[in-house]
Amino acid sequence: MSPADRPPAAGEFGLIDRLFRPLAGAPEALGLADDAALLPHADGRDLVVSKDMIVEGVHFLAGEAPDAVARRLLRVNLSDLAAKAAEPYGYFLAVAFPQAWDEAARAAFAAGLAEDQARFGLSLFGGDTVSTPGLFTASITALGTVPKGAMVRRGGARPGDMVFASGTIGDAALGLKAARGEALGLSQDDRAALEARFRLPEPRLSLRGPLRDLATAAADVSDGLLADAGHIGEASGLAVEIDLGRLPLSAPARRWLERQGDRAAALAVLAAGGDDYEVVCAAPPEAAEALARTDPALVPVGRVLPGEGVRAVLDGAPVDVTRTGYAHS
Amino acid sequence: MSPADRPPAAGEFGLIDRLFRPLAGAPEALGLADDAALLPHADGRDLVVSKDMIVEGVHFLAGEAPDAVARRLLRVNLSDLAAKAAEPYGYFLAVAFPQAWDEAARAAFAAGLAEDQARFGLSLFGGDTVSTPGLFTASITALGTVPKGAMVRRGGARPGDMVFASGTIGDAALGLKAARGEALGLSQDDRAALEARFRLPEPRLSLRGPLRDLATAAADVSDGLLADAGHIGEASGLAVEIDLGRLPLSAPARRWLERQGDRAAALAVLAAGGDDYEVVCAAPPEAAEALARTDPALVPVGRVLPGEGVRAVLDGAPVDVTRTGYAHS
Repeated sequence: MSPADRPPAAGEFGLIDRLFRPLAGAPEALGLADDAALLPHADGRDLVVSKDMIVEGVHFLAGEAPDAVARRLLRVNLSDLAAKAAEPYGYFLAVAFPQAWDEAARAAFAAGLAEDQARFGLSLFGGDTVSTPGLFTASITALGTVPKGAMVRRGGARPGDMVFASGTIGDAALGLKAARGEALGLSQDDRAALEARFRLPEPRLSLRGPLRDLATAAADVSDGLLADAGHIGEASGLAVEIDLGRLPLSAPARRWLERQGDRAAALAVLAAGGDDYEVVCAAPPEAAEALARTDPALVPVGRVLPGEGVRAVLDGAPVDVTRTGYAHS
Repeated sequence: MSPADRPPAAGEFGLIDRLFRPLAGAPEALGLADDAALLPHADGRDLVVSKDMIVEGVHFLAGEAPDAVARRLLRVNLSDLAAKAAEPYGYFLAVAFPQAWDEAARAAFAAGLAEDQARFGLSLFGGDTVSTPGLFTASITALGTVPKGAMVRRGGARPGDMVFASGTIGDAALGLKAARGEALGLSQDDRAALEARFRLPEPRLSLRGPLRDLATAAADVSDGLLADAGHIGEASGLAVEIDLGRLPLSAPARRWLERQGDRAAALAVLAAGGDDYEVVCAAPPEAAEALARTDPALVPVGRVLPGEGVRAVLDGAPVDVTRTGYAHS
């Protein structure tokens, strides 16, 4: 089973709705409708807590280097903190090492954690390790802090807000194809650049200040821009419209796009692809100028509207994104 | 691979020492030498955080009912909180469901969580779910709170303290044998009682007050009484001596013991067996009377001495416990 075969986000959200939301009655859980939970901390700060897991063959390709697995695991969790405008604090690790991972492989895994925890300014607080007869499976519980009340939620968008996305969108979806050996009609350099984006996401922690100051709602782009913008809309009780013509694209993604016959369908693939780990947020139009100056830039990709659901347009015309496999929860 | 085949505690602790302790420099981590991490919380309280995982075929037998798996997962984490004298607050769940677990099995898993979270007074704060082509693997990050500074640590024991254990010791080790079909020379009722102790541990949250008031150090009995008493000794920079003749034993365990030829070796099996999820603590001798009145009772099983390491005695003579497979870390 490869990453592309994992169940669509809608399936997971349905399961969470039916089975787990009834277990989450405390205000800290935010109704399981956000990327993180929110707990009181000390000294006028709140604790922002996210827990994501990765499984070999589901979230990364079998045979990936142990240090890269570790860094990806930490980064996907830090991406949740980034979207919540939280400062990294510490993390808990639970890791089931396959019996075939020898001490050198396990040491490489720890070295990957060491490298990235130093880069992102947090350290290990605790956890559990076990040898498994099964597949590599690990989770991190990542803790961040924000000034009290300053966490940026999914559910704060307002009608009239614009939707913004950071960095470039769709690279990871193309990078996964490249990692699985698809030529994509691109040069080796382009494929390598896209693949790197899939393998090692960059949590957008630099956006913490602008998000806190300017955004009404935010999420990280893990399930895909359409899905995650949709989560903001759903949590806010509003509809979201994404303009596929405004997606920020990398040079390799633009070159790939030029080779596709159906431009709308190709853009929908990029907007539906997961694993970009960019930030999608809502903010009032007057914030656009300041958001364009962030690093990476947050550029307008759509708008928040009365109603519900997420839809895509291109050159003013609706685009059916259900063909991409994306289904709104 | 069955639970009895899992790597000895010493192996895991060695791995943690070598690979993960260097990642845990923050004071919150307590040097990875405790059952939990300790973070500041609000309103004059501290947050006590534990993260344990369970893997099918390693921590529970394949074919176990999903609701029992869920309850065991939550309880082994609550056991850590109990030993730290913490009040349950909330938990994060990461669960990789095998693809063969249909919606009914997953719903049964959620129902098991629902039952026990109500019983123990906490709720779900967040997490992650995924379908795995591999084995059932899940972790819980359990959060508890204590009045500021009141967490009972592993490292607080003093020379002259006695060592106390709650409930009965060794039932889970025998229960695992029963679950794997061993007759043990016992009646069906006795085997069922022992098996139930293995399958569904009882976190000793009722001991919170006495531990906070009377204990100098505590841990839960997950790796086995000898190992976990040894952890208290190691964290306290002292030696621990366990008197095998004082182990609190259940009636079925006593009946099993009577059938064993080598009483010292049989007692060592009980003292080395994991999964009891009782509490082992150190406290001054003058606390013994009050600790005998707790529910379940905390009874003397040994003493804290200058030096290092853990050893066992019976009728005043040393017992070699290395034969049991127990190796001190």
